[in-house]
Amino acid sequence: MFRSLLIANRGEIALRIQRAARSLGIETIAVHSEADREARHVALADKAVCIGPASAARSYLDPAAILLAAEATGAEAVHPGYGFLSENADFAQACETAGLVFVGPPPQAIRVMGDKVAAKCAMRRAGVPCVPGPDEGLPDDPDAVRRVAAEIGYPVILKAAGGGGGRGMRVVDAEAGLLDALALTREEARRAFNNPEIYVEKFLTRPRHVEIQVLADRHGKALWLGSRDCSLQRRHQKVLEEAPAPGLDHALVAEVGARCAEACRQLGYVGAGTFEFLYEDGVFSFIEMNTRVQVEHPITEETTGIDIVREGIRVAAGLPLTIRQEEIVSRGHAFECRINAEDPESFQPSPGTITRFDMPGGPGIRVDTHMVPGARVPPHYDSLIAKIIAYGPTREEALVRLRVALSEARIEGVSTNLALHARILADPGFIAGGVDIHHLERLLKGADQP
Amino acid sequence: MFRSLLIANRGEIALRIQRAARSLGIETIAVHSEADREARHVALADKAVCIGPASAARSYLDPAAILLAAEATGAEAVHPGYGFLSENADFAQACETAGLVFVGPPPQAIRVMGDKVAAKCAMRRAGVPCVPGPDEGLPDDPDAVRRVAAEIGYPVILKAAGGGGGRGMRVVDAEAGLLDALALTREEARRAFNNPEIYVEKFLTRPRHVEIQVLADRHGKALWLGSRDCSLQRRHQKVLEEAPAPGLDHALVAEVGARCAEACRQLGYVGAGTFEFLYEDGVFSFIEMNTRVQVEHPITEETTGIDIVREGIRVAAGLPLTIRQEEIVSRGHAFECRINAEDPESFQPSPGTITRFDMPGGPGIRVDTHMVPGARVPPHYDSLIAKIIAYGPTREEALVRLRVALSEARIEGVSTNLALHARILADPGFIAGGVDIHHLERLLKGADQP
Repeated sequence: MFRSLLIANRGEIALRIQRAARSLGIETIAVHSEADREARHVALADKAVCIGPASAARSYLDPAAILLAAEATGAEAVHPGYGFLSENADFAQACETAGLVFVGPPPQAIRVMGDKVAAKCAMRRAGVPCVPGPDEGLPDDPDAVRRVAAEIGYPVILKAAGGGGGRGMRVVDAEAGLLDALALTREEARRAFNNPEIYVEKFLTRPRHVEIQVLADRHGKALWLGSRDCSLQRRHQKVLEEAPAPGLDHALVAEVGARCAEACRQLGYVGAGTFEFLYEDGVFSFIEMNTRVQVEHPITEETTGIDIVREGIRVAAGLPLTIRQEEIVSRGHAFECRINAEDPESFQPSPGTITRFDMPGGPGIRVDTHMVPGARVPPHYDSLIAKIIAYGPTREEALVRLRVALSEARIEGVSTNLALHARILADPGFIAGGVDIHHLERLLKGADQP
Repeated sequence: MFRSLLIANRGEIALRIQRAARSLGIETIAVHSEADREARHVALADKAVCIGPASAARSYLDPAAILLAAEATGAEAVHPGYGFLSENADFAQACETAGLVFVGPPPQAIRVMGDKVAAKCAMRRAGVPCVPGPDEGLPDDPDAVRRVAAEIGYPVILKAAGGGGGRGMRVVDAEAGLLDALALTREEARRAFNNPEIYVEKFLTRPRHVEIQVLADRHGKALWLGSRDCSLQRRHQKVLEEAPAPGLDHALVAEVGARCAEACRQLGYVGAGTFEFLYEDGVFSFIEMNTRVQVEHPITEETTGIDIVREGIRVAAGLPLTIRQEEIVSRGHAFECRINAEDPESFQPSPGTITRFDMPGGPGIRVDTHMVPGARVPPHYDSLIAKIIAYGPTREEALVRLRVALSEARIEGVSTNLALHARILADPGFIAGGVDIHHLERLLKGADQP
């Protein structure tokens, strides 16, 4: 096991990784921007290095600054967390070149999964179910493009191979708009991802977002850790997640889970990762893989009892996974509310100084946060300030605990989405379970009408 | 189910009971002294009533004030929590007479268990193992007293029948000191408990404190929920507890647990309760029963997944326990650190205003607290300000998480025992598990020597 870990991130995930590292006896090294000088992840780390100004591009997104900090502090490993450099294959490669253990998959696995077309090919090879559509980019020939789309059947969705996370996509309802949409999307992809390749898929109209958590070691062992439902999204941003995904056929989930584990083995994948699917009419369709730990990993930790971040560090150090697939049981149910500092009307970030921050507690309640009263929410980064996680023996009991927990939370100094969560928890569709990815936006629109 | 519950308590347990009540859809009614006007249990309750001045005797210990508050607010039930009036049979009786559901056992069960001699008789009848010694008070005749003590064998311990919780006890090492000790203890018992009855037991020199949690309903069903080890005590005050008690023979614990459940059935016991034992050389010896929820109940909730406070309310309302004994499995391990506002040298309470209160979080960490930054710790009540609870799949993993959690806690404005906990967690005896009830005091004394 390496002796020191530089955590190339901030916020709650930096703290989460510190906890896992400390539980393994590893020295923790924080990096921070000037805006985060007083942050809790800095105060609690064994060592801390300022790597640049507030701008993320010049601090948390600057590979050179981070590698320099690693060298200066004698770090033996780097954990990228989520966001920032976590899915940057070049950064993973640069860490390895510098003799640092990168806590995550090999650069090549990041690269494959980062190219959505290559990822889809790899998934089909491993038997992971994919959205109908060819495993290659669209050609330039207009007739060929029309033929491919007609074969799939409208509506279709155009996606940038270099995109992901909801960016670089356009829905086309009929052939009339196809070529214009393609030209627009290609141009956007060229600019945003420096990759003009576009592929086309069947557009599912009312899918759910269901994902499978995986863990793999350097010795060819890969496990799947149950499902999560993250359908409650606004503009492709997840708001509230639950594990397991409610109402699904167990045998089907197990079959898909086993395929995901198989894909990890074929890919030489190492560490924690997530296979994201659209789920509609009993069918799973792969959309992308996140080659890193996710914001919503705690709900899987609560239902399986497996410390995903800790295991991710252990496998990065070359230790074998000691858990066997047959031993992994999903017990009970867990929810996670992402508490954001944002304006409840406009959803714009609401930076500022937190003056009051009463978090809930008691049985089944876990809070992952880097905030304390007096802390600042800087305007430069994402607006996530806390994750309130509720576990219960059943979905109903977890939901009741979550509702009680949210009613206890008091945050002052910045605006938050606490009221939005309360509204979701009172929504009959959500309570019944199994809503689609447009549900939350419909719910929000409904309130705008008289 | 009743619709409203008056919580006749304060602090973290008032909040804990509110959470359970709210999860059952019950209206919560707080009572508070003038000193607790700004307390979190008051702010979060549906209704709140001031019942008197800061003095506990004239507020939380005043049955008339509480019954008046119940009447004024239309409360249908009363939860006494722990301490204060929780083991006062007359108060339980007065609640019933006033037409209120008392969340706890029937007054007669409280009365029997409150008289330590009567309790011991009842326990022996149910087959619960007891400390060697007669099931009756000592006579006045000096020869008879000497005969009884000699039969047990020295050292013996004299105990007031009306005592409990470490009060009204005296150890006698040899016959020479017996009669003087008896006279002294009797006189103290007369004054402190208004009951001069004294009984004698074998004094165990290096026992552990092991207890069994029980839950019983009004329909003759009684369950035991595993063991706890609370041997880490200072002056009979528990400091750090764990569940299950480490290193015990499972079959023996199951046998004693079954006897405790049987005793509940014989006693007509209802609600949550705890059988406290001394454990030495593989033998359990009953010392007393606490006829209420205990401070350390969360560690059993963490290991069994059963919400003890919620179940206690359900059975008080007459609902049957739906859990079956065979389904109760103790999984993993949990610890609880009692965080007190106290001087680390003198152990005297350290009241004041909390200026900083950073609590830990993350996987396996539960915090039960009524404190927030800016809150006052009044000088009038006990000094418990938070319970930090850590769960892990094994004792070792729970311990590691607890250590990390404690290292994250920052409390300013009052002195605390955080450093004492850190010291315990580094102690080889504690780490190995199974220390006796004098271990902590030995540890503390050791440090006083050069």
